[in-house]
Amino acid sequence: MDLRSIPTDLPPSKRCAWRRKIAEDALGVHLGLLHQEDDRIGSADEHSCEQMIGAVPVPVGLAGPLKITFSSGKTADVFLPLATTEGALVASVNRGCKALSMAGGVKTKATHHGTTRSIAFRLKIQDSKFKIQASIQETSHQWIKIAEATSEHLSVLSYDIDAKGPHLFLTLACDTDEAMGMNMVTIAAQAAGQWIAENIDGLEFITVAGNVDSDKKPSARTHQKGRGYEAIAECALPAAIIASILKTKPEAIISTAQAKLVDGSAIAGAIGKNLHAANVIAALYLATGQDAAHTVEGSLTDTIVESDRDGVRVRVRAPAILMGMRGGGTNLPVQKQCLQLLLRHDAGLHPRQQLAEIAAAAVLAGELSLLAAQATHTLAKAHEKLGR
Amino acid sequence: MDLRSIPTDLPPSKRCAWRRKIAEDALGVHLGLLHQEDDRIGSADEHSCEQMIGAVPVPVGLAGPLKITFSSGKTADVFLPLATTEGALVASVNRGCKALSMAGGVKTKATHHGTTRSIAFRLKIQDSKFKIQASIQETSHQWIKIAEATSEHLSVLSYDIDAKGPHLFLTLACDTDEAMGMNMVTIAAQAAGQWIAENIDGLEFITVAGNVDSDKKPSARTHQKGRGYEAIAECALPAAIIASILKTKPEAIISTAQAKLVDGSAIAGAIGKNLHAANVIAALYLATGQDAAHTVEGSLTDTIVESDRDGVRVRVRAPAILMGMRGGGTNLPVQKQCLQLLLRHDAGLHPRQQLAEIAAAAVLAGELSLLAAQATHTLAKAHEKLGR
Amino acid sequence: MDLRSIPTDLPPSKRCAWRRKIAEDALGVHLGLLHQEDDRIGSADEHSCEQMIGAVPVPVGLAGPLKITFSSGKTADVFLPLATTEGALVASVNRGCKALSMAGGVKTKATHHGTTRSIAFRLKIQDSKFKIQASIQETSHQWIKIAEATSEHLSVLSYDIDAKGPHLFLTLACDTDEAMGMNMVTIAAQAAGQWIAENIDGLEFITVAGNVDSDKKPSARTHQKGRGYEAIAECALPAAIIASILKTKPEAIISTAQAKLVDGSAIAGAIGKNLHAANVIAALYLATGQDAAHTVEGSLTDTIVESDRDGVRVRVRAPAILMGMRGGGTNLPVQKQCLQLLLRHDAGLHPRQQLAEIAAAAVLAGELSLLAAQATHTLAKAHEKLGR
Amino acid sequence: MDLRSIPTDLPPSKRCAWRRKIAEDALGVHLGLLHQEDDRIGSADEHSCEQMIGAVPVPVGLAGPLKITFSSGKTADVFLPLATTEGALVASVNRGCKALSMAGGVKTKATHHGTTRSIAFRLKIQDSKFKIQASIQETSHQWIKIAEATSEHLSVLSYDIDAKGPHLFLTLACDTDEAMGMNMVTIAAQAAGQWIAENIDGLEFITVAGNVDSDKKPSARTHQKGRGYEAIAECALPAAIIASILKTKPEAIISTAQAKLVDGSAIAGAIGKNLHAANVIAALYLATGQDAAHTVEGSLTDTIVESDRDGVRVRVRAPAILMGMRGGGTNLPVQKQCLQLLLRHDAGLHPRQQLAEIAAAAVLAGELSLLAAQATHTLAKAHEKLGR
Repeated sequence: MDLRSIPTDLPPSKRCAWRRKIAEDALGVHLGLLHQEDDRIGSADEHSCEQMIGAVPVPVGLAGPLKITFSSGKTADVFLPLATTEGALVASVNRGCKALSMAGGVKTKATHHGTTRSIAFRLKIQDSKFKIQASIQETSHQWIKIAEATSEHLSVLSYDIDAKGPHLFLTLACDTDEAMGMNMVTIAAQAAGQWIAENIDGLEFITVAGNVDSDKKPSARTHQKGRGYEAIAECALPAAIIASILKTKPEAIISTAQAKLVDGSAIAGAIGKNLHAANVIAALYLATGQDAAHTVEGSLTDTIVESDRDGVRVRVRAPAILMGMRGGGTNLPVQKQCLQLLLRHDAGLHPRQQLAEIAAAAVLAGELSLLAAQATHTLAKAHEKLGR
Repeated sequence: MDLRSIPTDLPPSKRCAWRRKIAEDALGVHLGLLHQEDDRIGSADEHSCEQMIGAVPVPVGLAGPLKITFSSGKTADVFLPLATTEGALVASVNRGCKALSMAGGVKTKATHHGTTRSIAFRLKIQDSKFKIQASIQETSHQWIKIAEATSEHLSVLSYDIDAKGPHLFLTLACDTDEAMGMNMVTIAAQAAGQWIAENIDGLEFITVAGNVDSDKKPSARTHQKGRGYEAIAECALPAAIIASILKTKPEAIISTAQAKLVDGSAIAGAIGKNLHAANVIAALYLATGQDAAHTVEGSLTDTIVESDRDGVRVRVRAPAILMGMRGGGTNLPVQKQCLQLLLRHDAGLHPRQQLAEIAAAAVLAGELSLLAAQATHTLAKAHEKLGR
Repeated sequence: MDLRSIPTDLPPSKRCAWRRKIAEDALGVHLGLLHQEDDRIGSADEHSCEQMIGAVPVPVGLAGPLKITFSSGKTADVFLPLATTEGALVASVNRGCKALSMAGGVKTKATHHGTTRSIAFRLKIQDSKFKIQASIQETSHQWIKIAEATSEHLSVLSYDIDAKGPHLFLTLACDTDEAMGMNMVTIAAQAAGQWIAENIDGLEFITVAGNVDSDKKPSARTHQKGRGYEAIAECALPAAIIASILKTKPEAIISTAQAKLVDGSAIAGAIGKNLHAANVIAALYLATGQDAAHTVEGSLTDTIVESDRDGVRVRVRAPAILMGMRGGGTNLPVQKQCLQLLLRHDAGLHPRQQLAEIAAAAVLAGELSLLAAQATHTLAKAHEKLGR
Repeated sequence: MDLRSIPTDLPPSKRCAWRRKIAEDALGVHLGLLHQEDDRIGSADEHSCEQMIGAVPVPVGLAGPLKITFSSGKTADVFLPLATTEGALVASVNRGCKALSMAGGVKTKATHHGTTRSIAFRLKIQDSKFKIQASIQETSHQWIKIAEATSEHLSVLSYDIDAKGPHLFLTLACDTDEAMGMNMVTIAAQAAGQWIAENIDGLEFITVAGNVDSDKKPSARTHQKGRGYEAIAECALPAAIIASILKTKPEAIISTAQAKLVDGSAIAGAIGKNLHAANVIAALYLATGQDAAHTVEGSLTDTIVESDRDGVRVRVRAPAILMGMRGGGTNLPVQKQCLQLLLRHDAGLHPRQQLAEIAAAAVLAGELSLLAAQATHTLAKAHEKLGR
């Protein structure tokens, strides 16, 4: 089954059709529904997906408005496009948005740690470790220049050096402008790693992706130190809103949070004590063309619930939001429309920072609503009713 | 902006269009590209996504064939539909499939631990813990009957009782037939929890989702004990195939694995020592209508590389594969076609078991190929060339 | 070499001499200096030491007075007999006593958790765990009665039940009146364990000492929960006293504490972050006839240093002080005199509680003085000068 | 109460008497029994104990012979002087010696890691860490020379550099000839630390005792890496000897070890999984003039029990034995006689190495005997009978 030798002058929808035909004939299956029009495929076949045979449409629901007061001090009503196939999710986030907005809205904040990539070296002589670490540091202006020369959009924000066994890891944290930039950082790290291996004695360059960055893997380090954007969202809700919108009481919310987020998560040995941050992150990432596998980092979120006056205060800390405006799926036409739907020109923030703060606010809406549902034992009923 | 009051007799594509129109007018954005035909939407608007305004098409690439010898003893060539917007992923998995197939194929195995949900109770009197734990155990035939009565497709496989502070957690592990069944188990757990709270003195029923199950959260418990299906895939590759297909040498692969998977992951404090299992899991889940947020559990995979004769032996252990044939996104028309493309009737296995074994094999292909790329420093080049 | 067949009507000093003679002849060594007079041996040969051949005299130095305000509210000047062979220790504690007393004295507090012993059982049927735990709890009034019948001096304060693998552990915490009581508790636990094994089905009685108590072993559990007496001692020292007595400055003390107690201890993975609590505990235990091996639990002490007005506040938390007035070495004549020297009739406290509070205060004196010495780099000089 | 202004020309026994008189008068207590003859005091008043008022005699019992095959290949019968006030200990060790000797004796081995002391520095500029670590390493021949110049008996075996927060720790591991050498190493470390602070820019010398060495504190690092001598002792015992001497069966020993050493120790979160290593270590250290507070490190011992043919194989790993032939209490006359009693001229080993191997063998005897007692439920009976 040869999917490669197809006429190059066809438009992408025809190329996909050509490949589907080969697969359908070879495997005796129907794939016709994977067809998409060219204006929806955009450049996916060239840049986003090899051996493309079409696409799966992921349903997009609209939640909101969610009133957010950004770290800029500006307040805006945000609508959330959520791509999901799991019934009840959009409705639940929507209810959370309503309660939060009525309570005055969500306050958000985000810190940019940069997109990270860790280069792995092996020490040729074990006891040269300190000397070589110092050499890497001393030559940093040189290899940072090399790294930054790989793209006009990349600058190195900071770096860490770690050692274990015979291995040394140099982790670069980079600003990547409008892109999430994982690949941009990989290319920069490759250049830096090569330069270092050629210019500092005693090192073998093992790999440009040494796992200290934990890209798409859960780790205590990412949970603690953050990666990409670390975003916080917070809101205090009075008892009246908890009663009218969320149909429960502050005590029930606190008691559920205590059992589930504190004790249940501890028994499980969880990194990230939340309810379902991954659900909201995945839906938002998919709708806006982000890398779905970065949902893993989103799941490291902590949700903290405290008593506040007659109600509760709920806060999420999402240590690793990895979103961009360019590159990957954000270049595709439909995803672009969702990004435009999401962003607010009056937020007074750099777009990627805005995306990170919105993501945390959206997670907060999802956490609050599910927490209330679990506190009133309506979770099972929601699933029964909404037909999953 | 009222998205709810729309005529109920419209077909789903018109309902989505109606809602988009409201949003476009209110927000001044274009959403026309989110349109999908009715035959692609299926019942998504009724069951999978509230306030649906259309869909984002996620490009699907085809990788394979991948020769798998399943735990049934049967061997089949499998093609992998991978939904992704990240360039190079399909090409990389495809290369892994080629190397593994040439080396005789992947051997797989999977154990069904069941889909889990943990109920949280609070002890009204702290020192009644042991007595109540015993009562829960002694009455298990009764509440299991109650739980199983909620669906003809559900049976309780096993249960765990854990205690921490004033809380008691009963975690049910269920067989859910052809469905992944998270919601089915939630409904059953709700019934069991209610029955227990009504029939055993001294317990307050806090929530049906107590986080000991770690659904969509990374945890040491899931990594250790497994959840859903725990699947293993393994293959030994001779040096000749490593050279011809993967363009590298066994020593380079082993040395990269040692630096990255062992030392790098340890520095990060990672649960799950792998390269990019989440990438392959996310792409396979999206294409086949699984819940994308379960990618989190997929990221707990361990990849183990050992020297074997003149080559290497590579093995992945994916402790928590959560896939189904029914429910959620698997009911949607396009996703159904991808599921049909993936499954093999001659695999001699129950479909969900087959999905789990295929997922592990697909992850193995992705791990092997990326490991080889990192070992030869071609990762950055792949990203440059494939245009991300 | 037969040390047992000696005339029984000899006084202890002669019995020791007889045995020494046999050993000297057999081994060609001199042991004459091990001789002690009968009035110093007391009943050691009968009760404290089998095959006794004499004694090693451990030098006793006197430190103090140390002004202590006990938890009773009473204040007293205490003198500390410290048995040690390590030069500089008594002088250092003495200096600490002086500084603390000048600063108004030490405030102490102690909580009696009881002396613990954990019985290990094996479950004959694994899944009977909860039922059997409940049965042990339900019959507690019965086996506690059995346990308490073994001595008129023992009462059960509380108990814990823990499970791991096929094993169940019942840990008794007992009040043992004037004795430290480890052996008393062992005898009581033996009786309770036998009764339980005979009266509750499904249990095999494995051992009366199941290590959950961590007797004479360092453990996180003892550090966290306490054992015997948990004692706290605290004092705030103004800069003037730090300058005049301790020859250093508050900043130097705080900076040394930060480096050593926080970061150094963390790198080591220490349980118990202190300077040399074991030194003071060992010296006090030896002088007063306590069990020297309980120094291990003493080493679990935490020392906390904080800035306070123009000086520092220093606090020690000794989670496990195991001291008694009767039994073991406290019955010996010389040790008894040291105990009398140490205790104050006007402290307004039960003697064992008083011992625990004094021990914590003594440790505080030792910690403070050494901390100051290390902050001024005089530690090495002290050792040079004091001739070790 | 002034203990210092006493005539300097008095012999030590009179000086102690003088001080006792002052204390007796001031406090209204009797201290006469603390008197010791001059030939037993030796130089204690000058070198081992300030403000000395006499001594407490700690009863010494003789256990053995214990047949040991040392790492030299030589075999010798060793007698153990054990200073203790805890009844049953000597008898128990003696029984262990008998069983082990009948089974062919104990095989021992010891590795000298050196006595350690960690110097703490603070970085004046945080990001100079790597450069400074390298400078410390590069100048190591210089500061090692400085350190070694402080004593003709000291040589630096190895060193570690660790960093945490703003602190850098240099840990020296030294050979200290015939002495345990803690103070010798402290003096050497002081010199090295001063030299480094004066010669390497950017460092503040905080303290010569930075707790990474964990002297007299329990730590994971000491347990893992060892300190002083790491000693191993092992013996296989056939069922017949277990029956005749230890009055139990291999199964009972293994089952008790499993419950206690594995599961019980794990519940406790213990570092060091043993029965009562601290008891034997403390008794041996006290008898031979070692520092009693080093019992803490002795308690980090692991005891491993395995089935072996028809019997069991028992092994202890004592990671940190700190014993010497000179300095501290080993200079005192009575303690010296005990040391002579213990050491064997035909062991074919450097005396300190011999002491470490004997200590491990003695611990093994204690562990085996107590394990057997606990396996047969005779522990409580032993305490009842031996009168504690």
